[in-house]
Amino acid sequence: MSQLLTNKAITPRNKDYSQWYNDIVLKAGLADYSAVRGCMIIKPYGYTIWEKMQQILDKMFKDTGHVNAYFPLFIPKSFFSKEASHVEGFAKECAVVTHYRLKLDDEGTEIVVDDEAKLEEELIVRPTSETIIWNTYKSWIQSYRDLPLLINQWANVVRWEMRTKLFLRTAEFLWQEGHTAHATAAEAIEETEKMLNVYAEFAENTLAIPVIKGVKTPNERFAGAIETYCIEALMQDGKALQAGTSHFLGQNFAKAFDVKFANKNGELEYVWATSWGVSTHLMGALVMSHSDDLGLVLPPKIAPLQVVVIPVYKGIEEVEEIKTKIQFLLDELKQHGISVKLDDDDKQRPGWKFAEYEMTGVPIRIAVGRRDLQNNQIEIARRDTLTKQMISLDRPVEYIRNLLEEIQKNLYAKAKKRLDASICKVDKWEELKDIIETKGGFVYAHWDGTAETELKIKEETKATIRCIPLHNLQEEGACVYSGKHSQQRVLFARAY
Amino acid sequence: MSQLLTNKAITPRNKDYSQWYNDIVLKAGLADYSAVRGCMIIKPYGYTIWEKMQQILDKMFKDTGHVNAYFPLFIPKSFFSKEASHVEGFAKECAVVTHYRLKLDDEGTEIVVDDEAKLEEELIVRPTSETIIWNTYKSWIQSYRDLPLLINQWANVVRWEMRTKLFLRTAEFLWQEGHTAHATAAEAIEETEKMLNVYAEFAENTLAIPVIKGVKTPNERFAGAIETYCIEALMQDGKALQAGTSHFLGQNFAKAFDVKFANKNGELEYVWATSWGVSTHLMGALVMSHSDDLGLVLPPKIAPLQVVVIPVYKGIEEVEEIKTKIQFLLDELKQHGISVKLDDDDKQRPGWKFAEYEMTGVPIRIAVGRRDLQNNQIEIARRDTLTKQMISLDRPVEYIRNLLEEIQKNLYAKAKKRLDASICKVDKWEELKDIIETKGGFVYAHWDGTAETELKIKEETKATIRCIPLHNLQEEGACVYSGKHSQQRVLFARAY
Repeated sequence: MSQLLTNKAITPRNKDYSQWYNDIVLKAGLADYSAVRGCMIIKPYGYTIWEKMQQILDKMFKDTGHVNAYFPLFIPKSFFSKEASHVEGFAKECAVVTHYRLKLDDEGTEIVVDDEAKLEEELIVRPTSETIIWNTYKSWIQSYRDLPLLINQWANVVRWEMRTKLFLRTAEFLWQEGHTAHATAAEAIEETEKMLNVYAEFAENTLAIPVIKGVKTPNERFAGAIETYCIEALMQDGKALQAGTSHFLGQNFAKAFDVKFANKNGELEYVWATSWGVSTHLMGALVMSHSDDLGLVLPPKIAPLQVVVIPVYKGIEEVEEIKTKIQFLLDELKQHGISVKLDDDDKQRPGWKFAEYEMTGVPIRIAVGRRDLQNNQIEIARRDTLTKQMISLDRPVEYIRNLLEEIQKNLYAKAKKRLDASICKVDKWEELKDIIETKGGFVYAHWDGTAETELKIKEETKATIRCIPLHNLQEEGACVYSGKHSQQRVLFARAY
Repeated sequence: MSQLLTNKAITPRNKDYSQWYNDIVLKAGLADYSAVRGCMIIKPYGYTIWEKMQQILDKMFKDTGHVNAYFPLFIPKSFFSKEASHVEGFAKECAVVTHYRLKLDDEGTEIVVDDEAKLEEELIVRPTSETIIWNTYKSWIQSYRDLPLLINQWANVVRWEMRTKLFLRTAEFLWQEGHTAHATAAEAIEETEKMLNVYAEFAENTLAIPVIKGVKTPNERFAGAIETYCIEALMQDGKALQAGTSHFLGQNFAKAFDVKFANKNGELEYVWATSWGVSTHLMGALVMSHSDDLGLVLPPKIAPLQVVVIPVYKGIEEVEEIKTKIQFLLDELKQHGISVKLDDDDKQRPGWKFAEYEMTGVPIRIAVGRRDLQNNQIEIARRDTLTKQMISLDRPVEYIRNLLEEIQKNLYAKAKKRLDASICKVDKWEELKDIIETKGGFVYAHWDGTAETELKIKEETKATIRCIPLHNLQEEGACVYSGKHSQQRVLFARAY
């Protein structure tokens, strides 16, 4: 499948950051454009990374007591009207199913929509599933004994987009959405925060992406939420990226769909709700957090292939000898749960392969020739630092295991340093504008707490309030824009 | 989540087989009806079984060299016109997306479709993905070096249905669809047969459902296939159920989407294709193969919970003592990879729990009281035979492991016996009609090979030709319906 990995040079970041990102996604074989406007194709290599994300997250969800289920793709149009703020947020740009049959036209040459097969009520392809799920919970929840209900769904969703940016902005994307029901507000809030922490732990420990935990301003909240918690990451170009959200929905959806439970005293109360999700958006964050001008860079914990072994040889005899002598290393690495492949494809030269595995972000590359084996050594190259080292074949597995851990830590540390360095405390409006325009990153500034100011800052700088950090310092100050009284600083940034 | 498992009596099979099936699906917590006509909700317990199916199948696909990818949910309407027979089969009953925006109506009270947001070309929610995938393969395949391309997709698909039968007939269902591309016809046929064997092995070894492998008649072929291979199972009511299909597509889709490759001599040739799939249909087959009038019966290899331990006690002290003394058994079973749960829910009595785990098909139920422990024994109940036995606590794990294997084998043997006994060799038309009407099962009879006869038999008996078995005996005979010359018998049955 060599066509899935084309090995041409990619545009450098400092020349055109956006093109650099596209080049990596396409050339590392992560995703492709499709014939359908706004819809992407997730290619096998990209999908393998997404599968790893799913497996790790799914285990985290199950370890915290959740189970998976599956709800319909289609939602009746009227459901969106039931929760007042939800319709504003989600019923606008969506895919509307109006008919359920095609037919041949009268000339018998072309397929056309059959006007007689018009739906009485249009169906919306789900942009998110709160409405259809809470409509179902109504029949599943009667008593406090039915609570909590801790359900997650892995699914595709559609939010219409005219302009496509692979993984970051597509009409259809893949995600998971947790939807839980609780007897008390306190329990629902605890769940909301617990899942935010699961996301943060996954982003930092698995993807090596440091994040800032916080809550959104009312203006940036999920449509229908009382409070939206989020994790925000920083990309290499200084733009923020929302890597996951967890919503405390209060009783909004329970009221909209009339979901009540009998408490221990037999009194009927509305149920408390949360929802939380991460999506293939994370694939974009992963690419932009670590990659360089040679291609993708992957943290070992999420890399589908952690180690590649490339024999360097002349002639068929030499390669067979190398393969025989190095087999023990492949066996031992596999025994230690390390994914490894020997690439003995005769159609490509070692130099071409080196570039290929740099493009696809394999964390460790081992080159081994006949002479090396005679000297009882192999050459190890790190994808993250691009450094090479000869190591002895006496205890290579231990060395490689440690190196994988070191690469994981190094990628996190590098990204963390960049994130920390990007946060600027700013008190003057001109300085905020200047930093947003030139350097990017997070600007930590006083805000008067009004949506009006927030929107004006957005108009003038394209920066939004990414979040109010959790456990934020409370300090008296003056709003960087209006000069009005402020009790805390918030984080501004331009964002994906 | 007690509402997910309601423990009321279910309708006996001999009273109303169809209602018996619905009762089990609903009351064992497998699936539920939704607010959207034709669409089902897969409940947590049902979804857990589907997840197990996915995991096992996915490993089988990967072990045979396949990788996963993801293609768009939407297919442009024009794509269906490109493969002539495909449009007949799939473009008829489908969900058609015509608009991409809703808006508030002029009174500002109701949400309506925004007429200005009409799509230039309608999009069809995929009923199957050959067209969108082969349109993509065109840009992925240039040379013989790009072949074979062995890709699978796990996805939801929609084929419009007015009447719903949970898992068996729903508008939206979940499935996997493999789509492979090859340089030669021989290689594509080998792939088609290989995947048929994967499906048969999965059905028989994991689901304990014996199947007949065969090929479909031209009339029953997949729209666009040269040959459709299938596995057919037999349900307890004597009706057949198609449990999986694997299609040799020849060069039909390559020609429709102009997908050519340069062979080793540099000549351009059309690519050869296969596609193959199984769906949540298998959930219905699983339910109907093994279950009884007390509820679901699951083969241990697919059961989410294999062993449940129920303490039988009076008072809190007694249950704590039992739990302490039996903990070693739970630990040891888990160490041996056996899924086990101790149910010490104080709100329900043991008798209620016994019925509950019978309803949900847990293969082994262990009851343990204080007196039993004093006698160094526990009571083991088999779900498949409903028999109970006291066993010693000296080596319980070995006993339980063997018993799980025995249950798996027994369920297969029982179903195999039923399948074999159902196959009737018939030479007279009246006998065929009578058997189909009264006894059901497979009728093995001569057929003249014409679609005309096949359709007439269907009209008169509601039975279809389920398949021509692989390696079918070639023998001269007279068609059971037309009396015309026939060279082989085929299998007739009514089917789901």
